[in-house]
Amino acid sequence: GYARVDTHRGIRTGDPEVVFGAGKTAAETVGIVDALRRASGEARPTMVTRADGATVAALRARWPDAWVSSGADPGAGGRPATVVVGELPEPRGLVAVVAAGTSDAHIAEEAAMTAAAAGAGVEIVRDVGVAGLHRVLAARPVLDRADCLVVVAGMEGALPSVIGGLVGTPLVAVPTSVGYGASFGGLAALLGMLTSCAPGIAVCNIDNGFGAGLFAARVARRA
Amino acid sequence: GYARVDTHRGIRTGDPEVVFGAGKTAAETVGIVDALRRASGEARPTMVTRADGATVAALRARWPDAWVSSGADPGAGGRPATVVVGELPEPRGLVAVVAAGTSDAHIAEEAAMTAAAAGAGVEIVRDVGVAGLHRVLAARPVLDRADCLVVVAGMEGALPSVIGGLVGTPLVAVPTSVGYGASFGGLAALLGMLTSCAPGIAVCNIDNGFGAGLFAARVARRA
Amino acid sequence: GYARVDTHRGIRTGDPEVVFGAGKTAAETVGIVDALRRASGEARPTMVTRADGATVAALRARWPDAWVSSGADPGAGGRPATVVVGELPEPRGLVAVVAAGTSDAHIAEEAAMTAAAAGAGVEIVRDVGVAGLHRVLAARPVLDRADCLVVVAGMEGALPSVIGGLVGTPLVAVPTSVGYGASFGGLAALLGMLTSCAPGIAVCNIDNGFGAGLFAARVARRA
Amino acid sequence: GYARVDTHRGIRTGDPEVVFGAGKTAAETVGIVDALRRASGEARPTMVTRADGATVAALRARWPDAWVSSGADPGAGGRPATVVVGELPEPRGLVAVVAAGTSDAHIAEEAAMTAAAAGAGVEIVRDVGVAGLHRVLAARPVLDRADCLVVVAGMEGALPSVIGGLVGTPLVAVPTSVGYGASFGGLAALLGMLTSCAPGIAVCNIDNGFGAGLFAARVARRA
Amino acid sequence: GYARVDTHRGIRTGDPEVVFGAGKTAAETVGIVDALRRASGEARPTMVTRADGATVAALRARWPDAWVSSGADPGAGGRPATVVVGELPEPRGLVAVVAAGTSDAHIAEEAAMTAAAAGAGVEIVRDVGVAGLHRVLAARPVLDRADCLVVVAGMEGALPSVIGGLVGTPLVAVPTSVGYGASFGGLAALLGMLTSCAPGIAVCNIDNGFGAGLFAARVARRA
Amino acid sequence: GYARVDTHRGIRTGDPEVVFGAGKTAAETVGIVDALRRASGEARPTMVTRADGATVAALRARWPDAWVSSGADPGAGGRPATVVVGELPEPRGLVAVVAAGTSDAHIAEEAAMTAAAAGAGVEIVRDVGVAGLHRVLAARPVLDRADCLVVVAGMEGALPSVIGGLVGTPLVAVPTSVGYGASFGGLAALLGMLTSCAPGIAVCNIDNGFGAGLFAARVARRA
Amino acid sequence: GYARVDTHRGIRTGDPEVVFGAGKTAAETVGIVDALRRASGEARPTMVTRADGATVAALRARWPDAWVSSGADPGAGGRPATVVVGELPEPRGLVAVVAAGTSDAHIAEEAAMTAAAAGAGVEIVRDVGVAGLHRVLAARPVLDRADCLVVVAGMEGALPSVIGGLVGTPLVAVPTSVGYGASFGGLAALLGMLTSCAPGIAVCNIDNGFGAGLFAARVARRA
Amino acid sequence: GYARVDTHRGIRTGDPEVVFGAGKTAAETVGIVDALRRASGEARPTMVTRADGATVAALRARWPDAWVSSGADPGAGGRPATVVVGELPEPRGLVAVVAAGTSDAHIAEEAAMTAAAAGAGVEIVRDVGVAGLHRVLAARPVLDRADCLVVVAGMEGALPSVIGGLVGTPLVAVPTSVGYGASFGGLAALLGMLTSCAPGIAVCNIDNGFGAGLFAARVARRA
Ligand SMILES: Nc1ncnc2c1ncn2[C@@H]1O[C@H](COP(=O)(O)O)[C@@H](O)[C@H]1O
Ligand SMILES: Nc1ncnc2c1ncn2[C@@H]1O[C@H](COP(=O)(O)O)[C@@H](O)[C@H]1O
Ligand SMILES: Nc1ncnc2c1ncn2[C@@H]1O[C@H](COP(=O)(O)O)[C@@H](O)[C@H]1O
Ligand SMILES: Nc1ncnc2c1ncn2[C@@H]1O[C@H](COP(=O)(O)O)[C@@H](O)[C@H]1O
Ligand SMILES: [Mg+2]
Ligand SMILES: [Mg+2]
Ligand SMILES: [Mg+2]
Ligand SMILES: [Mg+2]
Ligand SMILES: [Mg+2]
Ligand SMILES: [Mg+2]
Ligand SMILES: [Mg+2]
Ligand SMILES: [Mg+2]
Repeated sequence: GYARVDTHRGIRTGDPEVVFGAGKTAAETVGIVDALRRASGEARPTMVTRADGATVAALRARWPDAWVSSGADPGAGGRPATVVVGELPEPRGLVAVVAAGTSDAHIAEEAAMTAAAAGAGVEIVRDVGVAGLHRVLAARPVLDRADCLVVVAGMEGALPSVIGGLVGTPLVAVPTSVGYGASFGGLAALLGMLTSCAPGIAVCNIDNGFGAGLFAARVARRA
Repeated sequence: GYARVDTHRGIRTGDPEVVFGAGKTAAETVGIVDALRRASGEARPTMVTRADGATVAALRARWPDAWVSSGADPGAGGRPATVVVGELPEPRGLVAVVAAGTSDAHIAEEAAMTAAAAGAGVEIVRDVGVAGLHRVLAARPVLDRADCLVVVAGMEGALPSVIGGLVGTPLVAVPTSVGYGASFGGLAALLGMLTSCAPGIAVCNIDNGFGAGLFAARVARRA
Repeated sequence: GYARVDTHRGIRTGDPEVVFGAGKTAAETVGIVDALRRASGEARPTMVTRADGATVAALRARWPDAWVSSGADPGAGGRPATVVVGELPEPRGLVAVVAAGTSDAHIAEEAAMTAAAAGAGVEIVRDVGVAGLHRVLAARPVLDRADCLVVVAGMEGALPSVIGGLVGTPLVAVPTSVGYGASFGGLAALLGMLTSCAPGIAVCNIDNGFGAGLFAARVARRA
Repeated sequence: GYARVDTHRGIRTGDPEVVFGAGKTAAETVGIVDALRRASGEARPTMVTRADGATVAALRARWPDAWVSSGADPGAGGRPATVVVGELPEPRGLVAVVAAGTSDAHIAEEAAMTAAAAGAGVEIVRDVGVAGLHRVLAARPVLDRADCLVVVAGMEGALPSVIGGLVGTPLVAVPTSVGYGASFGGLAALLGMLTSCAPGIAVCNIDNGFGAGLFAARVARRA
Repeated sequence: GYARVDTHRGIRTGDPEVVFGAGKTAAETVGIVDALRRASGEARPTMVTRADGATVAALRARWPDAWVSSGADPGAGGRPATVVVGELPEPRGLVAVVAAGTSDAHIAEEAAMTAAAAGAGVEIVRDVGVAGLHRVLAARPVLDRADCLVVVAGMEGALPSVIGGLVGTPLVAVPTSVGYGASFGGLAALLGMLTSCAPGIAVCNIDNGFGAGLFAARVARRA
Repeated sequence: GYARVDTHRGIRTGDPEVVFGAGKTAAETVGIVDALRRASGEARPTMVTRADGATVAALRARWPDAWVSSGADPGAGGRPATVVVGELPEPRGLVAVVAAGTSDAHIAEEAAMTAAAAGAGVEIVRDVGVAGLHRVLAARPVLDRADCLVVVAGMEGALPSVIGGLVGTPLVAVPTSVGYGASFGGLAALLGMLTSCAPGIAVCNIDNGFGAGLFAARVARRA
Repeated sequence: GYARVDTHRGIRTGDPEVVFGAGKTAAETVGIVDALRRASGEARPTMVTRADGATVAALRARWPDAWVSSGADPGAGGRPATVVVGELPEPRGLVAVVAAGTSDAHIAEEAAMTAAAAGAGVEIVRDVGVAGLHRVLAARPVLDRADCLVVVAGMEGALPSVIGGLVGTPLVAVPTSVGYGASFGGLAALLGMLTSCAPGIAVCNIDNGFGAGLFAARVARRA
Repeated sequence: GYARVDTHRGIRTGDPEVVFGAGKTAAETVGIVDALRRASGEARPTMVTRADGATVAALRARWPDAWVSSGADPGAGGRPATVVVGELPEPRGLVAVVAAGTSDAHIAEEAAMTAAAAGAGVEIVRDVGVAGLHRVLAARPVLDRADCLVVVAGMEGALPSVIGGLVGTPLVAVPTSVGYGASFGGLAALLGMLTSCAPGIAVCNIDNGFGAGLFAARVARRA
């Protein structure tokens, strides 16, 4: 009695299959991944997002070659992890993922792994806070090379405005729930990105690295 | 003493010059457009968004060939208009703009004119409400042809979710302030689009047809 | 010292007695159910909503034939369960309960069990997401047969708009708290359903499967 | 270039055609009504909601027998009016519309005219504030006769809770934007109705008399 | 290093000393109560609100005659308790505390104990939901006898409106955080009470039984 | 066809009849006042709140002795006025109304006239801002004499906290919509008053001078 | 009967007298300014903020040397103006006021005139949008010279974060209500500034140029 | 793989290095502090804010002379602590930190330790609630001596308004998340401080003692 598996989307879209791990047991998640991989003939990778430690362990036990983000490792604070099962497609185009702070890094990782699983080349740039302009300027060459940017930031979410003023590349902004007080769980960053004075910015849901990575890969694959 | 004119962005980005007409007098707007056109050597078009009736008249008097949206015409209810001055670039790629209701049409028009001024080919599909699925399905061929979609909807903003489930094309959603009561000036549509269960959707600010059109053109021009 | 028991509502309304299990101990809940069943002469079933594992166990121990939803089973993730004690009434009319996602299923189950306990026939359709239109269209025959629809959806809550455009049946929409970020605990779905462009939709509180099931049964029983 | 007219919904649903008058000129509205009446063979009535004075006058000039609510009459404060063109269907079942205050009356009238145009019998009860219980109790016979209730209230929106505790009839609650300060344009009433402790209540958007009337007629027609 | 103790307020106001127990250890709370009782010469009682189980035990160990509410008893669900140490003043006037639901009872108890410790006579009426008008009407004699009413309700908070329409007594309304979904932690009840259509109602903070009890006692003591 | 007039509340409560002038024409308001005065045998005064200039003129024409607040006078900025028709009752007890700023004065006047019409003695103290403590301290004698305080303040609404720390009198706080930016139409003051750290404060709706004056008179009349 | 004039604050603080012009007639404002100037012996300047055209004209008629901002001039769009009457104090220290966009300029002007009237030296830098980093970097010398910065920005309000990362000077951020859609009248900018990742930033109310200018002058005067 | 360490800010600003301890393991935090201290040649102190018990223990083990706030001590309720490693700079100027309630004290301590580490002299005044004016007035001498004030308050946040009316010193207000119900996690205090009627107040984020202390030190160091 799991979710009905939709094996047509891949053919329609060229994207990987994906399972939202939050709220599912490790066994349920392994079962769904198994069904998806059998249905797709293993031609495409299968992703699990928001996997907890038990789910990561179960996926690794079943698919020892799985690509696992740093998230669910206890030493890294136990954030949910992203897991990709199966071989990555040949990369077309380039997605650059830029993360403002160390706490935004796991969302950036979710975006980057998604873009790779969806067939784009990916580069990540970390720790590019808006209050340190020299880091932003140092990232310029990667920004210029990319076909689509994913910019991840919490707190006031100002980084997309600054980067959007430097380049003419499509830029997908991802607000994160990092912050406290008047950041209201990512709302401050979300509103800031939506009202950015830099043109050519579109925004995904708070902490939605997956959605931004998929969107960016779709853009980069066509370029 | 107008705004300092930035004549470098065009070279950096390939986008048109743009003037935000709201809160400026007709004379101020004409003056800024004039300065921009002289500075850019008229190589690129110049846009005015949110122009009122007086501003439209003044722009038409100065540039009789200007392309004017249906907005500021009194018979159409007096919504602010979009105006493009100068020749359009040769179109590269295709942007499809889909509007859910008749009241969303002027935002869709702002998006479409912006995409055209930014060098993309454009097709508009109007009146594709989610409560009439046959209209959505009838638009399928255009959706499949496009390199980037702009989907404009007010009230509950469900149209991007439905279209996003049909195609694998990058989709930029624009919530509009159309609606009353619990739509809270576009907030219901905005939240709905941000939390859409269809993957590959990114969102612009409420009523921001300009931003969505520019974003979509940047995607389409690379395709 | 429990709640004063109102044994008149059943006679007034034809609905089951109901106990809100959240915040009550297993012993308190069993005690109240006992009092209600004695007072009503066991002529009508008694429901418990939002029961935790201990409460489910205690109810099962006392009434081994109780009908228990899948919720409180540890294997299913430990969501609160719905329990019906006593014989169901003879069904009159048909309520169709449609759930958008797997995570909405337990609210749909609460609605369905309530409608059955309130004397309506019930059919459930699961996993009918708006981003997969073929599933919506496949559910068409059930939707047409029903006297009242209950449509349960989280995230952007677009499903009622799509179904409401297909049929002329009274449709009760239930937003769920499923989602993250800008879904704000069900607020996005709630606002979306309230502002739906499809006519003939009324809305219940977030996660209120009970209220929707009862409302729908009242409509179906008259048909 | 008006809205594409959907002449199939009536056949699907048995409801009247309807035009949302707000934001349309009198000429546009008359044109759309004309097209709808020709398309439906005048078999069903056509409604206009939120019509201003000029639109009411234009509709009356074209259809002298139109049924016009008291709204757009200058002496009554100039609220938007509801207009029904064409003959009413034979009434089936009974909808009772209850209004809490004098200021809620025009929304109640929109609901009542909609229900009548949609083929239900209708009775209106006015000025039944929750702070005057004798008026609520005096309305008891009408409430008991009805197949569906529409309860319209602004400010704290408590009336549906009180009436919902008296009867077992399906009850559609309509919050209105009447009030000031912490009523926040109808939000207080909306939240109150959604969280009502009386079971069997479903809620429409703020000021949405049309939606509630249509929903109630669909229930009553089946009874 | 505890809080500086203000021993003048009692003399100024005739109210009990009070300690807000939340966020303090049992030892800290006992220490503060001790200091207050020594400073006031034990002429007035000392209250602790929001005391957890450990704090209740420590207070009982030190002052075996302390008056303890039912809250912190594990069998009652472990809500924070109210404790009064020292002899109650001679009661002047009458405060009636009315609670809408069983879950509101502990806030009502906080209000009642506060009013008693502040020198008023107190009667509590429980389980007077607005959806059961006969219970409201049955409470009429107590309401008429009282010099001030405290009405405690969660969810939609409609009870003060109904009672306020029956009597001309000053009525202090207390919204509680009881509810789920669109009740938003008591916000729905708070807004409902503030916008009540019944005149002569004033409102305290969500769950603030202490403030309401003190206010009501000040009114009753003067009568 | 006006509102049904309730001539029983006065007998129940000892309060004046009252008409909410906003949204009513001058003729309607005069008509309702007339009916109320005939029904009550002119034994009690009749109030009109929120009257515009035309309504004030019409009331003055019909009842030349009416007591009119300074509001609707063009020279004072044209705020809505309060009008009392008929003789005031003999005053019992004392209500002190304290206004923080000049812009809050018309709400304070509404409260004071209401309290007087409801049979209390009244004193007003104006311009007692919290940023000028010497004015607060200078008002001390009036505060001490009163049986109930009404404290009216906009912006951050801090005045009730300061006064509530000085006295032990029941204090009704009224937030006003005076302010800009983050005052959000009175919300900042409302939240501040609800969460005041001074005990014994209850709060009325934003700008609700009428409700506060009536509440305070009910307290003062019993003292 | 105007506001009581406080002639002590100047002596206490060294700040100018100030009159909030909004909601006052021209005659009232002139009267208050007159009283203030007589009371202070004209030793300090007197400011009027938010003055409309009539008030500016009346102030100019009475004090022909008054310093008037560009606001109330019809050609500039008719925004409220700031007016300073009387001689400026000798400047101590330097306040730099930086405005992000042309639409923010009148708030920047209010801040600058206030700082000057409060005895600080002032420099204004206009049109320094965050999407054009070269303009920010070009302003570096002024930023380094200043003793306190006032940074004014609407929309996403990112400019203070960028400037705060460049300098170690105290920085007062002022969000403006410039923007539309999800800027919610300045809320997006306000939240962004409060949650800025750059340290050493403090924030004033939306559009509160006066408060920021006064604060900055107090800092600069001590330096 | 920790955060890239920025060793230039200290030279630019004269501020201490700082590590945000929340969400980092004890080992990570010790590692970052170590790197910072080596990079800065130990010329400046290094701070850790929001350190939990394990982090405090690890820092103490490594730097036995570290200055630790009272926060992480279990007896004090386990709030996160502030830690300063290294010698304090010679103090210039004076920052006075005023805390309204006992629960606000740990935020005040974070502010005070930050100001000291940033090179200012510091005095703390505790327990200065606005409802006890005598305590405010008793703090007058410290307030007058200071070059910059930090005023920390939760609930309604009125204390900055009262102190701001007494002095002409720059005042940085810090709202805290202390409170319940309508305080909404510090929002009530934040809005109150932003809309304060006292001039010369600027506001930091909820619970941001660090930001306020740093800002105040920058002001005081220049005086
Ligand atoms: N309709 C629009 N919505 C949002 N931003 C716009 C719009 N039109 C123009 N803009 C932006 O406004 C800037 C011009 O603003 P201004 O200098 O005030 O004319 C452009 O660079 C665009 O980024
Ligand atoms: N008062 C109303 N409130 C909400 N929806 C309405 C109202 N009146 C009409 N509608 C809806 O608006 C649609 C017609 O919109 P339009 O095509 O713009 O005239 C109808 O199909 C109804 O669903
Ligand atoms: N300024 C006011 N604010 C709130 N409620 C008011 C006010 N003035 C009158 N009312 C209420 O409005 C009722 C009269 O409303 P109406 O019948 O529409 O004139 C009275 O019974 C009062 O309870
Ligand atoms: N308690 C605090 N509140 C706000 N910001 C802080 C706090 N403590 C440290 N920071 C900021 O966080 C930065 C360090 O963050 P991180 O690199 O994650 O340790 C510093 O540069 C400060 O600007
Ligand atoms: Mg899992
Ligand atoms: Mg213009
Ligand atoms: Mg239980
Ligand atoms: Mg019209
Ligand atoms: Mg404790
Ligand atoms: Mg009137
Ligand atoms: Mg004026
Ligand atoms: Mg740690």
